[in-house]
Amino acid sequence: MNIRTDLAMEAREILQKKDPESVSGVSESHETLAKGELTVTRVRIETEEGARKMGKAVGTYVTLEFPAVPERSMELEDEIANQLAKELKALLPEMTAETTALVVGLGNWNMTPDALGPRVVDQMLVTRHMLMAMPDAIDERIRSVSAIAPGVLGLTGLETFEVISSLVERIAPDVLVVIDSLAARKASRIGTTIQISDTGIQPGSGVGNRRREISQKTLGIPVIALGVPMVVYASTIAQDAIEMALSGGKRSLNSLEEKLLENVQQQVLSGTFPQMVVTPKEVDELIEEASKSLSEGLNMAFHDGLSLEEVRSYGV
Amino acid sequence: MNIRTDLAMEAREILQKKDPESVSGVSESHETLAKGELTVTRVRIETEEGARKMGKAVGTYVTLEFPAVPERSMELEDEIANQLAKELKALLPEMTAETTALVVGLGNWNMTPDALGPRVVDQMLVTRHMLMAMPDAIDERIRSVSAIAPGVLGLTGLETFEVISSLVERIAPDVLVVIDSLAARKASRIGTTIQISDTGIQPGSGVGNRRREISQKTLGIPVIALGVPMVVYASTIAQDAIEMALSGGKRSLNSLEEKLLENVQQQVLSGTFPQMVVTPKEVDELIEEASKSLSEGLNMAFHDGLSLEEVRSYGV
Amino acid sequence: MNIRTDLAMEAREILQKKDPESVSGVSESHETLAKGELTVTRVRIETEEGARKMGKAVGTYVTLEFPAVPERSMELEDEIANQLAKELKALLPEMTAETTALVVGLGNWNMTPDALGPRVVDQMLVTRHMLMAMPDAIDERIRSVSAIAPGVLGLTGLETFEVISSLVERIAPDVLVVIDSLAARKASRIGTTIQISDTGIQPGSGVGNRRREISQKTLGIPVIALGVPMVVYASTIAQDAIEMALSGGKRSLNSLEEKLLENVQQQVLSGTFPQMVVTPKEVDELIEEASKSLSEGLNMAFHDGLSLEEVRSYGV
Amino acid sequence: MNIRTDLAMEAREILQKKDPESVSGVSESHETLAKGELTVTRVRIETEEGARKMGKAVGTYVTLEFPAVPERSMELEDEIANQLAKELKALLPEMTAETTALVVGLGNWNMTPDALGPRVVDQMLVTRHMLMAMPDAIDERIRSVSAIAPGVLGLTGLETFEVISSLVERIAPDVLVVIDSLAARKASRIGTTIQISDTGIQPGSGVGNRRREISQKTLGIPVIALGVPMVVYASTIAQDAIEMALSGGKRSLNSLEEKLLENVQQQVLSGTFPQMVVTPKEVDELIEEASKSLSEGLNMAFHDGLSLEEVRSYGV
Repeated sequence: MNIRTDLAMEAREILQKKDPESVSGVSESHETLAKGELTVTRVRIETEEGARKMGKAVGTYVTLEFPAVPERSMELEDEIANQLAKELKALLPEMTAETTALVVGLGNWNMTPDALGPRVVDQMLVTRHMLMAMPDAIDERIRSVSAIAPGVLGLTGLETFEVISSLVERIAPDVLVVIDSLAARKASRIGTTIQISDTGIQPGSGVGNRRREISQKTLGIPVIALGVPMVVYASTIAQDAIEMALSGGKRSLNSLEEKLLENVQQQVLSGTFPQMVVTPKEVDELIEEASKSLSEGLNMAFHDGLSLEEVRSYGV
Repeated sequence: MNIRTDLAMEAREILQKKDPESVSGVSESHETLAKGELTVTRVRIETEEGARKMGKAVGTYVTLEFPAVPERSMELEDEIANQLAKELKALLPEMTAETTALVVGLGNWNMTPDALGPRVVDQMLVTRHMLMAMPDAIDERIRSVSAIAPGVLGLTGLETFEVISSLVERIAPDVLVVIDSLAARKASRIGTTIQISDTGIQPGSGVGNRRREISQKTLGIPVIALGVPMVVYASTIAQDAIEMALSGGKRSLNSLEEKLLENVQQQVLSGTFPQMVVTPKEVDELIEEASKSLSEGLNMAFHDGLSLEEVRSYGV
Repeated sequence: MNIRTDLAMEAREILQKKDPESVSGVSESHETLAKGELTVTRVRIETEEGARKMGKAVGTYVTLEFPAVPERSMELEDEIANQLAKELKALLPEMTAETTALVVGLGNWNMTPDALGPRVVDQMLVTRHMLMAMPDAIDERIRSVSAIAPGVLGLTGLETFEVISSLVERIAPDVLVVIDSLAARKASRIGTTIQISDTGIQPGSGVGNRRREISQKTLGIPVIALGVPMVVYASTIAQDAIEMALSGGKRSLNSLEEKLLENVQQQVLSGTFPQMVVTPKEVDELIEEASKSLSEGLNMAFHDGLSLEEVRSYGV
Repeated sequence: MNIRTDLAMEAREILQKKDPESVSGVSESHETLAKGELTVTRVRIETEEGARKMGKAVGTYVTLEFPAVPERSMELEDEIANQLAKELKALLPEMTAETTALVVGLGNWNMTPDALGPRVVDQMLVTRHMLMAMPDAIDERIRSVSAIAPGVLGLTGLETFEVISSLVERIAPDVLVVIDSLAARKASRIGTTIQISDTGIQPGSGVGNRRREISQKTLGIPVIALGVPMVVYASTIAQDAIEMALSGGKRSLNSLEEKLLENVQQQVLSGTFPQMVVTPKEVDELIEEASKSLSEGLNMAFHDGLSLEEVRSYGV
């Protein structure tokens, strides 16, 4: 059965439930912060077999989880940005005065649930041009950052990979960060989860279904992927409902019941549902919140020692 | 059981399935146009008992159904606009040289799935000010139309009904047309259905959950409601899945199976699902298409004898 | 000669220059704050004769002047918002627990230089609906505020005055605040000046050229007008150039020169220039900055004792 | 004296007025179409000396002039698009089934007067990806077109030339078309003029002041530049006023008058005016109209034999 999620944490959860043996080659650890409101999960896919089973590349996947907007305090928002900066720094190469980073916002600015990447790019503190023009006039904590949103295939006629790889070749950054809207398995993860990984972007992942791998393997430089789930498949909502009913029962199901429910699941998956991708009706606000957190975290991670307050004051 | 749909056609369908007797007081007729691509369904709720069972006001509900955008030809789009104009004319009072119409776009322009009303208002051919200033200079087919999008309670602090009723009192239009994004029962109806009714807007309907009835009863003038489904409840997606499994079986279910499935449904409905309202990820495009059809239909219906081509040429 | 400016301060300046006698009935005082970066000018038109000469209504006009964005520090932005709140409080009726304020954003959201009003409305902390629904659950410093952007005549077919007066009648606020983009005489005032007055809005003022007076006289409640210049007439740019040349000369002009320059001015004013209204190419950013300052000032002025930090944290 | 205009036609006009001898090496021809409402001017800069005097590169500059929007009929809009397509075809290399074109929209989508390029890109009929994926399924009149809006230096940290040249190297198009908002000398040319040239983009031209030459010389492929004036310098408005006064007089000026006016001009140009760049308050609508004309013309010019109606029906 195909697991439709861009979150390694969810993929592991599902495998674990079906067969704890199956997740050999995949390790996981948890940390709880901010009085229990912020959970950090680190999944490491260590072997090719683990990668195959998970449907994800070998590497590290860090997930931040936190409550949805109405329950999120201002303090928690600060903690999310700060923790994100910390996790990014752990995965990024060291940012010295000579390091250059390129940020690429994947996605379609005309399609709200897929607009996360372009929106983050709009809020990046870009500095490469200033450091090239007048290196001595710039605060010494500032690193060289550039950012671009190349658009999607249907709008440009250009494969995203073509645009990125030609740019990487030309400006030779030390690290690439790609931002993308993700698809989750559970609707409750939309807008409440940030995933950071050192594996780049695999074909078919994300809301826009990129076609080519964007990774160290294909580009020759470290590629950090950063994303927030913004959509789920309608079919997974249906599966959730059935699983909830299953696990909600106090007693074990008898074999007849199990067989019946399996049939239900089968029929759902083979029907029209799997095609439809949905997002909460509040998606405009979710994108705004998520792009703020991501850009704040990135701006702090890149520029050595800039505080959250300083980052905000640049007002980008 | 609560039927969560703003479409009378769907409400009737559900009642009919559960108990054909239950829809006494409700009549329905169908018409197929445009080589089978455009279906017009007319539901009439004739009695108070019918209204109670349907959870909708007594009156006429006309529904246009057509394929989703990728399968919709240019010719079909013209047919939709023309048929919509025709159905609107049948429900509107006769538009004479003296008639004035007020169009109110309900909804929140900052929340894409709820922005249908404001977007239609932006595309209305408004003429009241011109007819007042220089009545003789205006093409005699033009009727007096004004249009406003009053916003939502959380953004203005004003109940929509307050704004509308004070305006209706002041400018005394002969008819009010209210545009709203609707919630459907089936996800497949999103962006593929237009509902026109002479009943106005009932509390709790629509994406934004209006709180006060906007109707001839509360305003004293005819109120035509016009809407397109843009959201469904996540819970109904789950229910659909289960029902599909049920009805998909070749044989009747035995009593054990039926009881089990009822339990599933029960648990789904009492869980966290019912709160979540979802929309397809293509919602931006769906809103654009729907607002175009609605404004074209309205502009033709209001102004006596303007063709679709003329309406488009005004480029509003 | 017609003075095309919505700023009382500019009108007085021009009159004063031409004939110091002419500004009898008009008083002016200045205050300098924020290390000289923030100037507050108070013009009082005290007599009908003063009003006639100034082309403005009898009343108080307070102007805040400050540097353009690139030279404006974060601290100065805070000072502007705080001083604006202070000046507003001096003109507003006392905001008690029972006071209700209505904010109306004039202007056209589809025309950037005229979008100031709607943009401020979007950022208002509206509370009327919450105070009506659950008065005891709300922070006691919060006052009842509602806000609406009624659009412009050409988009709605409704005269702004009609919409406002019908709403004022219905919801009976204690004070009305109207926000508008203004036309200045000098291009350098665009985005660097805020005018607050207790005279409301006069016909023909503002970017959108409102047609009806919106004031205590026409509405029966205090009307505070708040605006920022966003446009100038192309003709005033030309006049400025000529005046600059005139006053820039070290010596007095001889009579021939004066006559020649008068001819130039005459011809400019009678030509095609007076029709064209221009705005700086950075107008999108100017509108964003101005709407932020105005909404921050208003939110502090209305709600008793809310700090700038608290106002910002509401994140409206 | 520096002539601040991106229009070759205006530059020639100014030179011609000052000294008819000075425009040797520059030829010009006119054509009037559409019952006098559409003028086509062809300026050819033939020599390096002509180029130096004109402040423009050697090459062909075609200008379409037409009335401003309120006076422009639907028929005229069709004529503009059709004539633009014709002029583009004359400058483009022949578009065969193998030809690939890349369209680059220069400019900043967050700054309305500079957003022409990105807006045109949004409306391009891009086809490269489809022709690569399924060449046989596509209408044979369709040519391979891709389009991108790389943003501006201050938003991306990347010099536009870097992005374009790396892309050109990678995808190897046969021709590049660059779209840009232009600065004109006369305010009346804003939104009423289209310039097409085979010279590409020179440093310092356009609203955003590009820094590197984008041309056949720097990229190795033909570069067609396409633009519409959207701004003027405030200083040129002042100069116009003075010149109008000068030329408006029935008699010749005496030497004293001429000297005086020269002084005025001198002072204006050395003052604060030259810095300010202005645009009409209706700039949002002007950008929308211009991007529609440009994309229609381009879509017809690229795809062999597509009619205006077909181009519009694609609804991009």
